[in-house]
Amino acid sequence: MTARPKTKRGAARRKKILEAAEAVIGRTGFASSSIAAITQEADTALGTFYIYFSSKEAVFRELLLEMGQLTRRALTDSIREMPNRLEAEREGIRAFLEFVAARPSLYRIVEEARYIDPDAYRAYFSTFAAAYKQRLAAATAAGEIRAGDPEIRAWALMGIAKTLGERYVLWEDNPDIDHVVDEAFRFIRHGLEP
Amino acid sequence: MTARPKTKRGAARRKKILEAAEAVIGRTGFASSSIAAITQEADTALGTFYIYFSSKEAVFRELLLEMGQLTRRALTDSIREMPNRLEAEREGIRAFLEFVAARPSLYRIVEEARYIDPDAYRAYFSTFAAAYKQRLAAATAAGEIRAGDPEIRAWALMGIAKTLGERYVLWEDNPDIDHVVDEAFRFIRHGLEP
Repeated sequence: MTARPKTKRGAARRKKILEAAEAVIGRTGFASSSIAAITQEADTALGTFYIYFSSKEAVFRELLLEMGQLTRRALTDSIREMPNRLEAEREGIRAFLEFVAARPSLYRIVEEARYIDPDAYRAYFSTFAAAYKQRLAAATAAGEIRAGDPEIRAWALMGIAKTLGERYVLWEDNPDIDHVVDEAFRFIRHGLEP
Repeated sequence: MTARPKTKRGAARRKKILEAAEAVIGRTGFASSSIAAITQEADTALGTFYIYFSSKEAVFRELLLEMGQLTRRALTDSIREMPNRLEAEREGIRAFLEFVAARPSLYRIVEEARYIDPDAYRAYFSTFAAAYKQRLAAATAAGEIRAGDPEIRAWALMGIAKTLGERYVLWEDNPDIDHVVDEAFRFIRHGLEP
């Protein structure tokens, strides 16, 4: 359980510890990350950690929640102005790949959750998939995309984004995001268009 | 480094330890798996492990190699008789999902390699992708599928299979593989067909 700080100074210290945890866990993985390494990275005393988080698992869960919120916000913002579902798919992939480029450690943390906190890992992707499924079902009803099982499609599209993010963003020093988006979307567009 | 046993009895004991390692690591993850737990599962003495493997990392790498060989064989066998690339895609997804259902622990081991042995993890998927890319390029040249970057497509298709395997096979007690294959292929076929 995590205590929410009541003061501005407390909130800032908590945020600093979270950022340090993201950096350390993203760099060396959960198992090799000690709370001492996290507080050292945050330039704070070891005891300060326990004011805000009860354990390494607790700070990890908090990072996972943050990752979910940030990714959803990045995707929602990117597709808000799109005239239809196909355009939204294209800009959604772009936003996701750009998010991976900007926050590579968060990507690694989400994938590592499979082992650290399997329930939170499932919940993380299932929450995404549920919302995605609804948007695909609505787009099918509106005639913007071809009919098909919206849940299976949601997971298939998430799988494309995740895998291209790992291969073409995390593994590359200078990712060519535009090219990956264009090519991935060429395939997805034909796969979905009515 | 792994010593290859020279006798039939040695080969059988080595195989038994590998199977035990697959079961233990697949169940509890790499970090929590001790060599003692592996030899206990194999019903053999602790020292026997070191006749065949130098470390837990060595047996893990061996499992990864085995997973790669088995998956490639399952996929190759499944698509041998297919008349064209699109049919091969459909049967390839089916073979992959059936393989995940048959050997769920190997799937988990491959994904955990991302943290245990990142180079082996990259090599694992890059080897797959290189062969896949060639088959897609050949199919494009033969007019069986639409033109497009064959490497990006290979990773996108691998991402679909991996993600659907986790969601609809690993997470389900009674996976409906036929339905998942039909729906995934509906999307992929339109995405690729000329």
